[in-house]
Amino acid sequence: MAEPNRNTIEVFENPYPGRDYEIETICPEFTSVCPKTGHPDYGTITITYVPLEHCFELKSLKLYLQEYRNHGAFYERVTNTILDDLVAVTKPKWMTIKSEFTPRGGIRTNVKVEYRAK
Amino acid sequence: MAEPNRNTIEVFENPYPGRDYEIETICPEFTSVCPKTGHPDYGTITITYVPLEHCFELKSLKLYLQEYRNHGAFYERVTNTILDDLVAVTKPKWMTIKSEFTPRGGIRTNVKVEYRAK
Amino acid sequence: MAEPNRNTIEVFENPYPGRDYEIETICPEFTSVCPKTGHPDYGTITITYVPLEHCFELKSLKLYLQEYRNHGAFYERVTNTILDDLVAVTKPKWMTIKSEFTPRGGIRTNVKVEYRAK
Amino acid sequence: MAEPNRNTIEVFENPYPGRDYEIETICPEFTSVCPKTGHPDYGTITITYVPLEHCFELKSLKLYLQEYRNHGAFYERVTNTILDDLVAVTKPKWMTIKSEFTPRGGIRTNVKVEYRAK
Amino acid sequence: MAEPNRNTIEVFENPYPGRDYEIETICPEFTSVCPKTGHPDYGTITITYVPLEHCFELKSLKLYLQEYRNHGAFYERVTNTILDDLVAVTKPKWMTIKSEFTPRGGIRTNVKVEYRAK
Amino acid sequence: MAEPNRNTIEVFENPYPGRDYEIETICPEFTSVCPKTGHPDYGTITITYVPLEHCFELKSLKLYLQEYRNHGAFYERVTNTILDDLVAVTKPKWMTIKSEFTPRGGIRTNVKVEYRAK
Amino acid sequence: MAEPNRNTIEVFENPYPGRDYEIETICPEFTSVCPKTGHPDYGTITITYVPLEHCFELKSLKLYLQEYRNHGAFYERVTNTILDDLVAVTKPKWMTIKSEFTPRGGIRTNVKVEYRAK
Amino acid sequence: MAEPNRNTIEVFENPYPGRDYEIETICPEFTSVCPKTGHPDYGTITITYVPLEHCFELKSLKLYLQEYRNHGAFYERVTNTILDDLVAVTKPKWMTIKSEFTPRGGIRTNVKVEYRAK
Amino acid sequence: MAEPNRNTIEVFENPYPGRDYEIETICPEFTSVCPKTGHPDYGTITITYVPLEHCFELKSLKLYLQEYRNHGAFYERVTNTILDDLVAVTKPKWMTIKSEFTPRGGIRTNVKVEYRAK
Amino acid sequence: MAEPNRNTIEVFENPYPGRDYEIETICPEFTSVCPKTGHPDYGTITITYVPLEHCFELKSLKLYLQEYRNHGAFYERVTNTILDDLVAVTKPKWMTIKSEFTPRGGIRTNVKVEYRAK
Repeated sequence: MAEPNRNTIEVFENPYPGRDYEIETICPEFTSVCPKTGHPDYGTITITYVPLEHCFELKSLKLYLQEYRNHGAFYERVTNTILDDLVAVTKPKWMTIKSEFTPRGGIRTNVKVEYRAK
Repeated sequence: MAEPNRNTIEVFENPYPGRDYEIETICPEFTSVCPKTGHPDYGTITITYVPLEHCFELKSLKLYLQEYRNHGAFYERVTNTILDDLVAVTKPKWMTIKSEFTPRGGIRTNVKVEYRAK
Repeated sequence: MAEPNRNTIEVFENPYPGRDYEIETICPEFTSVCPKTGHPDYGTITITYVPLEHCFELKSLKLYLQEYRNHGAFYERVTNTILDDLVAVTKPKWMTIKSEFTPRGGIRTNVKVEYRAK
Repeated sequence: MAEPNRNTIEVFENPYPGRDYEIETICPEFTSVCPKTGHPDYGTITITYVPLEHCFELKSLKLYLQEYRNHGAFYERVTNTILDDLVAVTKPKWMTIKSEFTPRGGIRTNVKVEYRAK
Repeated sequence: MAEPNRNTIEVFENPYPGRDYEIETICPEFTSVCPKTGHPDYGTITITYVPLEHCFELKSLKLYLQEYRNHGAFYERVTNTILDDLVAVTKPKWMTIKSEFTPRGGIRTNVKVEYRAK
Repeated sequence: MAEPNRNTIEVFENPYPGRDYEIETICPEFTSVCPKTGHPDYGTITITYVPLEHCFELKSLKLYLQEYRNHGAFYERVTNTILDDLVAVTKPKWMTIKSEFTPRGGIRTNVKVEYRAK
Repeated sequence: MAEPNRNTIEVFENPYPGRDYEIETICPEFTSVCPKTGHPDYGTITITYVPLEHCFELKSLKLYLQEYRNHGAFYERVTNTILDDLVAVTKPKWMTIKSEFTPRGGIRTNVKVEYRAK
Repeated sequence: MAEPNRNTIEVFENPYPGRDYEIETICPEFTSVCPKTGHPDYGTITITYVPLEHCFELKSLKLYLQEYRNHGAFYERVTNTILDDLVAVTKPKWMTIKSEFTPRGGIRTNVKVEYRAK
Repeated sequence: MAEPNRNTIEVFENPYPGRDYEIETICPEFTSVCPKTGHPDYGTITITYVPLEHCFELKSLKLYLQEYRNHGAFYERVTNTILDDLVAVTKPKWMTIKSEFTPRGGIRTNVKVEYRAK
Repeated sequence: MAEPNRNTIEVFENPYPGRDYEIETICPEFTSVCPKTGHPDYGTITITYVPLEHCFELKSLKLYLQEYRNHGAFYERVTNTILDDLVAVTKPKWMTIKSEFTPRGGIRTNVKVEYRAK
């Protein structure tokens, strides 16, 4: 299986470019691999954004997130990388990524990152 | 069955025109058709507004939303079109449409659009 | 049974007139009659206010709301009328009425009205 | 769109024919049309069975249930017909259909039907 | 408004008379009047039955239950009377009525009655 | 305030003496006093029974349960005593008492007692 | 049992006097007596504050709240009195009391009071 | 801190020895130590029994369960040992222990043991 | 990553071989691959058993279930295979496997398989 | 077992030092000892922060929180000390600690502390 690659994400033209509106996409089936222990991690990725010229296409987003399945990375890096990739591809007005991971050793971690166009 | 048509929506005179108040209408039985796959989509449409001169009538709203039953459109377009149609017909002070669709391929999407009279 | 009448509502003197505080009263057993179909409607009425000189008495509020039992009125009018009656009788600093009705034809409606003393 | 037709349902060979086991399939996106009012009905169909020689294939089940989308039938008939069709096609050891419909006029109805091979 | 009358309930022919199946109908908008205090009572009536020759029609059931709106009766009597009326009209194989009333004086009461054809 | 006394409980004639049916009464506002620490205990008392000749009257039940407010007794004794008193007064066909107390020292206790007429 | 008395509440020195922090204490086992009917009322008292020099001690708070057990007072007065007593004893930077009472006659009431040091 | 010792558990005489009744005690604050990793485990212990001559006293049960705080044992052994100890001390007619542990490595485990006097 | 192999599962001696007791292990992080579409499936696997001579070790169970991560198999086969493997390795008195998969195309499926030693 | 010591907490370099983002870590298995009664307390500790140069490592955080297992301290002190230790070690831009303790004597307490770099 391929490594995470932002080229997997396809976009389509924003059908209402003149109006600010918010799209929230919730992906509760995210999984990656802990680079330290080699064991899988599981979480929910929530993407919220106000599009400018482009929206991301949902099927390609699913394929992009599946590329993390056998990829090793810590929670903080995964969340920031997904933001970087989605911002690069869709160039939104505003975007946040929230990731919520299942407990390990009795401890749960969530990470929240935000991008705002200048 | 007819295509979605804003003429289906009937209005009545706002019974308290001098006072700002908020009406929230929740429609959990919305269904349309995905234009790409031809499979039905399901969702909840929530309309919130502050009326000026007119309120929409609930039975006609139900008929209007039923016109999407065999109509093909993506989530973003459906939500923006419902806002356009309800704003054109009721000319409110403020209105938002929130649509929350059931999961496809393990991914759920919500869209939120707002109109504010100048 | 009598028609809704604001004289049914009794008040008592605010026991802490010098301090702003908020009273929230929730009435989940409200019922009135749809003037169009003649069928009963059901809902929850939530009253929130900051009293000035008077508070409404709960038993008399119950009797007042029971007067809607066989009274025909649409959601928007019911909610605004309850606000008008309670404001006239208690003359509060601030008051909101929120009504949440049970679904009809797969659609639920909530109405929120606010009064603020000048 | 076609009328409900049991030929739409495809089967595959039971992978563990020598052992009794139970398969439960839950379809919360069922919709048909009320033959009296012409308005759509919405519900959840739950199918539970112990297969003998064949299991039904999930994609074809989805297509079969979609054929009810513009089909007019009462709750009791819909539920019994789905049982008849699935029993005819899969010839299971035991099967139940439970349908749970959303409220109409403040009233909800569920129907439960069972088949047991002799 | 009329007093409760079993003649209000209409029936239709059981569409699957040769097969035992269960119909559950849930009515969360029931209201009657306490004969002692004159205040309204509120509750949920759940009817479950296996039909023989006839099923009750839902719209007429709604009208029948609305006849209790201004009728005075205690919980135990209401529940037994509804069973008597529905058994007399539909002659089912088996029927139960469960009524669940909202709290009065911090106390809630449920009543469950069963009929079984000999 | 008086001590718990079964004479406080009033009964009325079972309105359907020829048919077995079940009455469940739930009292979430029960409070008594721990005889060891003197601190109050809180719990929910659920009474379920099939009446023979008499039913207990709800207002008098409320007064009877209020008599435990300043009465000292352990959970096991309270539950058994309420059963003894209600059986003595109503002479039912069958009765259970379930008491569920709020946590003390991180531990919660429930007690369930049953009576069955011979 | 004694009447409510603010001298029952003991305090201890704020262990972090130089830093603003918030303490929230939730007491779901509050009970007092309605002065009109003599019947007990039940509720949850939530105290939130930013301490200055002193914090209240939890065991003594429990004893103080138990003093309301046989004390007659309306909801509005009870809530304001608890605020007055706790402010007098702990002299906080900021404090709110929220009381939420169980339903009476199908109606629930909450009261929210706030104190802010000048 | 002492090791788990059944002598810590005190009993009192069953106040209703002639009648079968069920006592359920729920302890959500149980913690012990994993003998393999040395890390703490957390769980809820639920004890249900029908007493014969003796009931266990709740405060002493709490102390007994606290003795597991720094004690190393696997889930299966802990659950069986608590049953052995409580049976030895109270000699009940019937007893079950259910333990439900919090997740480790994404996996949760519950153990259920039963004793029945001959 | 290796294919699913029952040799991955390690066992330890049942610490209470003379007594029947039940162990329930819940694994909400199961994932495999759909052999038809190549897309991942997600589900919860619940294993319940009464051990005879051996119990399975939890860490090795986790590793065994992780071997399904890139393995292609339908729901029915996965569930039956896990039962076969766990029965072969632990030789229990009784065991059930329940698998509950997340929705695909708006449809969810659960499978329940049971083994009972002769 | 050692006393709480901030040297137990290890850090790693913030992988995205140029961007503000929020990390929330939830620890529902916290336990310490009440210095007054000697009995254990249980709670959930939630840490939220915006890192500058360093993030805390999760395994070492777990070990640090385990050091409170046999440590005696009141709620207010525990919460402030955890903030002091984590701020000293990670030097974040902003951090809050929220602790929520289980009920004692029918009363629950939460404490919320915040740090903001100058």
